[in-house]
Amino acid sequence: MRQQKIIKYRNEHFEQLDDEIAVEFPLTIVVDGQEFATMVCTPTHLEELVVGFLASEGLIRSSKEIKAISVDEHRGFAYVELVTKQSIQKEFYAKRFIGSCCGKSRQFYFYNDVKTAKTIVHSTNVHAEQCCRLMRSLQERSTDFQATGGIHNAALCTPDEIVIVRSDIGRHNTLDKIYGYCLQHDLSLSDKLIVFSGRVSSEVLLKVSKMGIGIILSKSAPTTLALELANDLGITVVGFIRGNTFNVYTHPDKITGLQEKITI
Amino acid sequence: MRQQKIIKYRNEHFEQLDDEIAVEFPLTIVVDGQEFATMVCTPTHLEELVVGFLASEGLIRSSKEIKAISVDEHRGFAYVELVTKQSIQKEFYAKRFIGSCCGKSRQFYFYNDVKTAKTIVHSTNVHAEQCCRLMRSLQERSTDFQATGGIHNAALCTPDEIVIVRSDIGRHNTLDKIYGYCLQHDLSLSDKLIVFSGRVSSEVLLKVSKMGIGIILSKSAPTTLALELANDLGITVVGFIRGNTFNVYTHPDKITGLQEKITI
Repeated sequence: MRQQKIIKYRNEHFEQLDDEIAVEFPLTIVVDGQEFATMVCTPTHLEELVVGFLASEGLIRSSKEIKAISVDEHRGFAYVELVTKQSIQKEFYAKRFIGSCCGKSRQFYFYNDVKTAKTIVHSTNVHAEQCCRLMRSLQERSTDFQATGGIHNAALCTPDEIVIVRSDIGRHNTLDKIYGYCLQHDLSLSDKLIVFSGRVSSEVLLKVSKMGIGIILSKSAPTTLALELANDLGITVVGFIRGNTFNVYTHPDKITGLQEKITI
Repeated sequence: MRQQKIIKYRNEHFEQLDDEIAVEFPLTIVVDGQEFATMVCTPTHLEELVVGFLASEGLIRSSKEIKAISVDEHRGFAYVELVTKQSIQKEFYAKRFIGSCCGKSRQFYFYNDVKTAKTIVHSTNVHAEQCCRLMRSLQERSTDFQATGGIHNAALCTPDEIVIVRSDIGRHNTLDKIYGYCLQHDLSLSDKLIVFSGRVSSEVLLKVSKMGIGIILSKSAPTTLALELANDLGITVVGFIRGNTFNVYTHPDKITGLQEKITI
């Protein structure tokens, strides 16, 4: 956050105030001397962000595959050296993937997603009350959003409590930061879940799947494409968690504590 | 929007309901036989979206430069034929631009933004009360958001009224749709402004600048990078419009109706 002078209009008058603005920071990732991607982000936990992004893009599978990483915060560059040099086929990473059948087939749209998204086989369960409690905890810890109004938050959790929270102006960056942290600390993920402040788009859903996590709890809405992917990949999507209510969109079997057994 | 069965948790019970989910649609744009970009979007006004996106990326400057355009909604492809064939240098479009001086220089980060962003010289003014009234009009017309919770809205306006509204799950797509509409209808833009539901990021700000529009009014917060660009490019950013209050972040001279004259 950065302090800045603004003009506030209130009661038909203008006054000058100090306000806090969310920092947006362009970061270019250079892999083995080649420019790989430029993203805008919140400049915190940049090394985690880079590690998580590279894993999510399928360039690495563990942090051991990285020989060296350095971040130049002044100029906004991250330099990564891999243990095994790869020729990065850029056109491949942005290339559209069209499945052979149109109906119920997997709705991937990029080749590298096909390579890295995993169907969830092992996953923890979570009790309905824990869903509401975890969202409350995330909101209590999300002070930046209240100050700047422009930050997304994601938390890696066990069903009982938050493990870490990461914030970013980019929704998916919050997940890459968490993924990077997990790889750097060799955390097991099948007993974890993600609690998220933002909308569950296809991109968000795919990142959760790449991490091998089977449950995402969100304060906001999912999209149709995210739900199709979640159905196929075995991920439970819970949305609109507000107070003691929420919606379950896919794979309700992982939500426990219901007397009645309901399927979708 | 698409209807889908969900499970609602409320009062410690689960029940099955129908809910409306925002559609997320992958669209690949093919220019002169070459895959140019894949985006996810709300599948409405797709031709406008393609035209606006190509203009925003600097491939065209008017809709006359497009010889033919067709959209295959079933497979999610748009085929564009340009009057003058260009060899699209893909790496150029994603290439990071680093200005020579680090201090107050323009904060562009992609080469094509340097080429297409315009400093605003001619712009209308808007009265403080009109700012609040236009935001109210946009919200009254944004019924999709209330239903699905996942849609952004942008309106092209005169200071007095809304000209068109476009909606999308992608914030910047709303602006590309508006830009496409303007190019297809040869609208003059220096007397217009943008009213926007989402956060003003650098990408949003750059799109407004490329359209040649001098004022953006938003319900949400701007980022630091967006404000640096707005300062340099002569764009007035108004944020957090809620009821009869708002914040002015840059170039307050275009907001009229103040007794007192305040600068930032």
